[in-house]
Amino acid sequence: MASDKGVTPRSEDYSRWYTDVVQKAELADYAPVRGCMIILPYGYELWEAVKNGLDTRFKATGHRNAYFPLFIPESFLKKEAEHVEGFSPELAVVTIGGGKELEEPLVIRPTSETIIGWAYSKWIQSYRDLPVLINQWANVVRWEMRTRLFLRTMEFLWQEGHTAHATYDEAEEETRRILDLYADFAINDAAIPVIKGRKSAQEKFAGAMHSYTIEAMMGDQRALQSGTSHNLGQNFAKAFDIQFLDESNELQYCWTTSWGVSTRFVGAIIMAHGDDKGLRLPPRMAPIQVVIVPIFRSDEERDPVMATVAQMETTLKAAGVRVHVDNREGQTPGFKFNDWEMRGVPLRMEIGPKDVEKQSVALARRDIPGKAGKQFVPQEGIAATVTALLDEIQASLLQQATEFRDSHLREVTGSYEEFGRVIEAGDWALSWFCGSKACEDQIKADHQIVSRCFPLEQPHPGAQGPCIACGEEAAEMAYFARAY
Amino acid sequence: MASDKGVTPRSEDYSRWYTDVVQKAELADYAPVRGCMIILPYGYELWEAVKNGLDTRFKATGHRNAYFPLFIPESFLKKEAEHVEGFSPELAVVTIGGGKELEEPLVIRPTSETIIGWAYSKWIQSYRDLPVLINQWANVVRWEMRTRLFLRTMEFLWQEGHTAHATYDEAEEETRRILDLYADFAINDAAIPVIKGRKSAQEKFAGAMHSYTIEAMMGDQRALQSGTSHNLGQNFAKAFDIQFLDESNELQYCWTTSWGVSTRFVGAIIMAHGDDKGLRLPPRMAPIQVVIVPIFRSDEERDPVMATVAQMETTLKAAGVRVHVDNREGQTPGFKFNDWEMRGVPLRMEIGPKDVEKQSVALARRDIPGKAGKQFVPQEGIAATVTALLDEIQASLLQQATEFRDSHLREVTGSYEEFGRVIEAGDWALSWFCGSKACEDQIKADHQIVSRCFPLEQPHPGAQGPCIACGEEAAEMAYFARAY
Repeated sequence: MASDKGVTPRSEDYSRWYTDVVQKAELADYAPVRGCMIILPYGYELWEAVKNGLDTRFKATGHRNAYFPLFIPESFLKKEAEHVEGFSPELAVVTIGGGKELEEPLVIRPTSETIIGWAYSKWIQSYRDLPVLINQWANVVRWEMRTRLFLRTMEFLWQEGHTAHATYDEAEEETRRILDLYADFAINDAAIPVIKGRKSAQEKFAGAMHSYTIEAMMGDQRALQSGTSHNLGQNFAKAFDIQFLDESNELQYCWTTSWGVSTRFVGAIIMAHGDDKGLRLPPRMAPIQVVIVPIFRSDEERDPVMATVAQMETTLKAAGVRVHVDNREGQTPGFKFNDWEMRGVPLRMEIGPKDVEKQSVALARRDIPGKAGKQFVPQEGIAATVTALLDEIQASLLQQATEFRDSHLREVTGSYEEFGRVIEAGDWALSWFCGSKACEDQIKADHQIVSRCFPLEQPHPGAQGPCIACGEEAAEMAYFARAY
Repeated sequence: MASDKGVTPRSEDYSRWYTDVVQKAELADYAPVRGCMIILPYGYELWEAVKNGLDTRFKATGHRNAYFPLFIPESFLKKEAEHVEGFSPELAVVTIGGGKELEEPLVIRPTSETIIGWAYSKWIQSYRDLPVLINQWANVVRWEMRTRLFLRTMEFLWQEGHTAHATYDEAEEETRRILDLYADFAINDAAIPVIKGRKSAQEKFAGAMHSYTIEAMMGDQRALQSGTSHNLGQNFAKAFDIQFLDESNELQYCWTTSWGVSTRFVGAIIMAHGDDKGLRLPPRMAPIQVVIVPIFRSDEERDPVMATVAQMETTLKAAGVRVHVDNREGQTPGFKFNDWEMRGVPLRMEIGPKDVEKQSVALARRDIPGKAGKQFVPQEGIAATVTALLDEIQASLLQQATEFRDSHLREVTGSYEEFGRVIEAGDWALSWFCGSKACEDQIKADHQIVSRCFPLEQPHPGAQGPCIACGEEAAEMAYFARAY
């Protein structure tokens, strides 16, 4: 479990860099079953940070967690036509239980709209029961052999929210509230400047009326869909008979929503911030915010250094800073510096005999390489110094990612050839788009991409322009980009 | 989702009382797949309290969370002989994936020793890699059609710890450390006075060298195994080739442990504390610690009452108390009192016009029925008053459960007939026991019970006595009891 060599530089081979970082920083490992992964402790701690950030926000907006079964009767999947078409090719099916062949095979949930729809139809009778605001943290399975750790795995962890409402407006409001919540989390906790938008008809969730998304730009300019929020209209309510008596005592179908963020988001954090040396973790997400590396050459030097180290550790912990002391023996300070840089720890504190003497410590920022990011600060007031620096690093990562993103967004209102050049260059094209299947298919055939979203913040609200593919008048612009 | 009627009194029909409480207090519901359950928000919040209580303790003792795949290649299960024999009849098997028949069927984990063993054999090379201290929070599946919500379900949630060590002693120390941790949690957080013990050879985990357990007494005197910690010896290390180079550079097999607590524990909380009226939740576990019921008859009365309610709510929340205001319209205070009693909320606060006038509130304890448990206290200093009362209730529930337990433990050193009478009366018999399969089988045949454990705290340490079944000299006493 050691990281003896550095990672392949990102600039050299992005894909290998990603795999290297995930494995050498011990975030995840391949499992014996193709398509699956093992999430290692450091990677799981990142996922716990995602969970905490989201769960706190869900609870603050009145949602409660529950848990629904892993197994779904095969017949349930077939009740919503688009849904079954979308998920059928991806199902894992249990046919044997307790040594016997099952009468009705059980599908392992690829998502839980159907079984939750069944439950809601039982639970909801009156408008007084609405809204139902439930979330679940669970594993889901979608058959998939082209594994990319975190990004694409057969089994993944996620949260899936499922809500039921009395009116379209309330459901739409919920769908957008969650989209905002996701964006708030991504931007403020994960320092990823996501773009909020609506999916095209072709790219929406199977069974949804419409789907919203937060799209993030990775370090290789590709887009990563990082969270989605769906207004399901009355599709699932009709398929599962989720009805309620309204205030006039009339039977109505509910309006439902669903929304999710998965372990994929860990991949987004890695790729949005990483550099040639490895990970760079935003302080609010980092399992270790400060690593302390003691430096000494002799036993006489060791004792005073370690005493100071212990004192700094205690002070920082008391201030709520997540701190780790690297007291591994037989490893040089230089090795440790590289190792923790690769693991993306935002701040490194070095303490040697001179620091003890001067009552100072050296602090090195992960986000500013070399000497420029290093400073000597007094031990006194260290908690305030460190806390302020962590805030600065958090802001700096968001700023860097925003500048990088903005430098690769191109408004393309000219020719389809110009559009093609932008896409081939790896940038995101923002173009007028009619949203038709024919145009989406043509762009896909020509450039192997689909639309990412119609951004909610349109650059020319109220205006119209010619669809980049067919030239027909379009009311909205959409982003197009290569994507994961 | 309303609880219109009370529960079947516990004294009348314990089994129906349990099912009533679970459903009417909205802890869990049946799923459309036989053997499975839906954990409802209130029940899931109890499980979150279990998770938090344990997770904090795991992390404080150096354990880290990780996540291993749901799917295990069928061949893995077969590598440890006892293990496969124990789990084969209970497996759910995926034979179809992505529309195709699989070459090797995948088993849904009934527990993860095998797949984690595979991983540890890859990760561990040297004594420097040890100990490995990993826990995972996950769902597991054991084929089971006789469902009892929380107590016995085909799919359940749990944590499973898996550690690897260099020596037997270290593994044994870890196994016992976890047992102590479980007992500490059960006693101090859940107010359940569990008995720590070692399982007999017949009752140990399939593949373990020996298993420890915490056994709890439910309200009907039956035992509930509430957590187990296994010293796996070198069994899994040998089956999965988990080897390390020791300090003398010699190849050694690791010593491993595993340990788990599941959603079953929610059942333990329900049954250890519940009474005729429903749940009684220990304050440290209760999702709602204080429910405030506003009382008014007119609109003029409403405003000042609700102002005081809001003030009390804010004050208690600021003090970290989990408080809920029941402002449902169209329900009488009497209905609300009964409803929250049934849901086990430790403390009820009533606020009416007279309370506003007198700057007081009424507090009713769930653990002391009727007037004896009710008092009027000043609004000033309410946070301190409530916090102290919650501590008292926590202590009182533990004391009640301990007294109940102790009144049903019987040391039986006399005849096998006396042993039979104690068991038939529903008590726990503590008897000398040789631990042989023959004796365990005989007792099982005669009384439909097995041994619960050899308690770690033996009443006559160093002494010996005749086995209650065969009369041969035995070195330890064991508990026998009806069990869930």
